[in-house]
Amino acid sequence: MDPAIKKKALRMITYGLFVATSRDDSGPAAGTINWISQSSFTPPLIMVAIKADSALHRAVAASRRFIVHVVGKDQKDLATAFFRGAELSGDRLNGYRIESSANGIPLLVDPPAWFESRVVNDVRGGDHTVFVAEVVEAGVRKDTEPLTLRDTGFFYGG
Amino acid sequence: MDPAIKKKALRMITYGLFVATSRDDSGPAAGTINWISQSSFTPPLIMVAIKADSALHRAVAASRRFIVHVVGKDQKDLATAFFRGAELSGDRLNGYRIESSANGIPLLVDPPAWFESRVVNDVRGGDHTVFVAEVVEAGVRKDTEPLTLRDTGFFYGG
Repeated sequence: MDPAIKKKALRMITYGLFVATSRDDSGPAAGTINWISQSSFTPPLIMVAIKADSALHRAVAASRRFIVHVVGKDQKDLATAFFRGAELSGDRLNGYRIESSANGIPLLVDPPAWFESRVVNDVRGGDHTVFVAEVVEAGVRKDTEPLTLRDTGFFYGG
Repeated sequence: MDPAIKKKALRMITYGLFVATSRDDSGPAAGTINWISQSSFTPPLIMVAIKADSALHRAVAASRRFIVHVVGKDQKDLATAFFRGAELSGDRLNGYRIESSANGIPLLVDPPAWFESRVVNDVRGGDHTVFVAEVVEAGVRKDTEPLTLRDTGFFYGG
């Protein structure tokens, strides 16, 4: 297999952009992700691949709970703000206001939609872990189009 | 959780459109899918959720091999042609010309890009099975934009 061709083919997978949050004993964790898809209607499951060597991974593996926020078309700043870890200051995470979900996970108030999930299975072995998780709560705050990875000019894949 | 809100939030996940092909003893199997994402750089893994009650699922579960074809911006007809199973006629599958990959999986010649994968793990439990698979071969035939689910006006998710 030619690695350049493999990269080019895999970069033709279409993605949105999302900010995932979680929490463990050391505090909140967060990160921008795009490797996510629904994986079942009944029960409602999603599959998310999270970088194995990351604070977000540690928090999701420990708490088994996380929230995925959909980044809106006009929120590229929000996506880029979560490229590197999570810094809490008062009621703001990386500068963006948060509330707490019923299960204690940081919930960003700006994104147009979010869903909270409980991990039911995981597959290790790559440089990211696949978490399969049941959606247990969801919210929609605004009727807007989602930002796509293609919109941003960034790549994560290949 | 309000099912209508859950549906609306999950439908804000951005997807591309793909035709997946596989083969078992009974012949070729195929289907249009959108629940797919890369899940590791090294090794190169993808995660794909395939409807548990489908011929495509049976073939992937048996052969552990499948090809994902990226549907191009101008190929909505190709995506819709594979909404229902696979019918082989000469060198055509659902009317679209195929070759055979080195591993004997039907390879459509029209899509702009494709990647062949070998299943390394699966997670059952939902109405779709999550297959985690290593990309072992890939091809790019045309430099074109991928079709997105949003482009088509269809939904699969929620």
